[in-house]
Amino acid sequence: MLDGPLQSLINGQQAERISIRDRGFQYGDGCFETVRVLSNKPILWPAHLKRLKHACKTLQLSVNFELLQSEITQLLQDNKTADVILKITVTRGEGGRGYTPPEHANCTRIIQLIDYIAADTRTGARVVVCQHRLSSNSLLAGIKHLNRLDQVVASAQIPADFDEGLCLDEQGSVIEGCRSNLLLAIDNQLVTPDLGKSGVEGVMLNYLIDKFQVLDTRVLRKTISLRELKTASEIFLCNSVFGIWPVAEIENEDWRMNREKRHFSAAALEIQNKLFRYNTR
Amino acid sequence: MLDGPLQSLINGQQAERISIRDRGFQYGDGCFETVRVLSNKPILWPAHLKRLKHACKTLQLSVNFELLQSEITQLLQDNKTADVILKITVTRGEGGRGYTPPEHANCTRIIQLIDYIAADTRTGARVVVCQHRLSSNSLLAGIKHLNRLDQVVASAQIPADFDEGLCLDEQGSVIEGCRSNLLLAIDNQLVTPDLGKSGVEGVMLNYLIDKFQVLDTRVLRKTISLRELKTASEIFLCNSVFGIWPVAEIENEDWRMNREKRHFSAAALEIQNKLFRYNTR
Repeated sequence: MLDGPLQSLINGQQAERISIRDRGFQYGDGCFETVRVLSNKPILWPAHLKRLKHACKTLQLSVNFELLQSEITQLLQDNKTADVILKITVTRGEGGRGYTPPEHANCTRIIQLIDYIAADTRTGARVVVCQHRLSSNSLLAGIKHLNRLDQVVASAQIPADFDEGLCLDEQGSVIEGCRSNLLLAIDNQLVTPDLGKSGVEGVMLNYLIDKFQVLDTRVLRKTISLRELKTASEIFLCNSVFGIWPVAEIENEDWRMNREKRHFSAAALEIQNKLFRYNTR
Repeated sequence: MLDGPLQSLINGQQAERISIRDRGFQYGDGCFETVRVLSNKPILWPAHLKRLKHACKTLQLSVNFELLQSEITQLLQDNKTADVILKITVTRGEGGRGYTPPEHANCTRIIQLIDYIAADTRTGARVVVCQHRLSSNSLLAGIKHLNRLDQVVASAQIPADFDEGLCLDEQGSVIEGCRSNLLLAIDNQLVTPDLGKSGVEGVMLNYLIDKFQVLDTRVLRKTISLRELKTASEIFLCNSVFGIWPVAEIENEDWRMNREKRHFSAAALEIQNKLFRYNTR
């Protein structure tokens, strides 16, 4: 995972260091996006941009999105790598000591291209349940802000031979994977955990929800206990980097990977394949 | 509040910039302390160090504390300012993309001396109740980690002519001020909000609790609703930078600043005065 940045721009300039006065560093006062780039096309870019704008609005960050967009174009123009990650970080910029945002903040824009080391998602994911419980907060839930200690602590609890960790909130409801969202088939209904108080609203999750809708399959958002999760006939993970990753086992318990039953996972993989293939043509 | 750093050391070297790969910047993966320094003595230093060590243990950050201590000594040796803030930040150091902490992390140590612009605490504090609700999380509560978006969002809700904002959790319990802890006299009993799920365990708060104990006054930690807070005969704020700050009004409602009644605030101010005076002798 120590994939180094290929190139980075800070406020339009090639740079790799920021001030320790940057509020992104001081308080995690900012947000980010991680975008898969195939053949120099940022996959699901409009959805990423929409989520970034929503996060900036929630945190009241005044970002120059036109400039950001042109800097991304500039960075991608010079890119020679076919499959790469575009990471965009936006912070409230520099400030003094004290939590109060400066009256006239100059937001920092950071754009990085990072080598993509693909996860092998063809074999199913081996998943554990993390002991750490996610924080809950109605305002911060859903947005991909820079306060990610929950994910750091939870990820540290995944043994090396496992692929992902399931994160629960303090009420014991299943919320998401450390770096992915979760879809489950329960009683022939596709469900996904309610993200109203914890978790990140995944770009790939919402893309799938829309695409399933077109196929007349409604994805139900609801509170899901770990016990209920274990009644699921199919479970799969998704994010905008690796796409779809069916779960093969949870805590060493085999997860019904017999293919004939995996109706929803198969449909999701088809949606993913179309998306990734379309963008590499 | 745009008080610039007088001097800063990053891993022992004079520097002001860190890598965008530093996990403190990427995820707020670290913690900090803000220490008042009077006549080159860091006030309540053993308590700050103890809290920092506890935070590092919780987050599993392997920091070289001997080195940190010697760097602090080095920075303070050259200091010519009588009243200054020492800010210590510790992060998990650099890492690639992905939440999982690197197997062999080299923690980053940042020490800053920052000009102290004293708040005038002699007149009572004008306080509002912030609309933003604090996140709750049993593991992260109490420690002064770098995930401080709650405080940023809440602080932005304090009008310019007010001094501090009260923060509640999502259950409506009063937790703390944006940058201070809270002590209240209710029915002649000194109480402070329970910090088991939200808030920061203040160094000054715990110093006061200990000192009041010596005076045979036990400070009770309990869940306090906003309604109960408003029955308090005295309310005062504390932190290790400004010390004690009696509350004069909450949301424009006068807060019984008639002096004869302010038994506990007076005792707290005396404790503070002794502490600050002792260290400036």
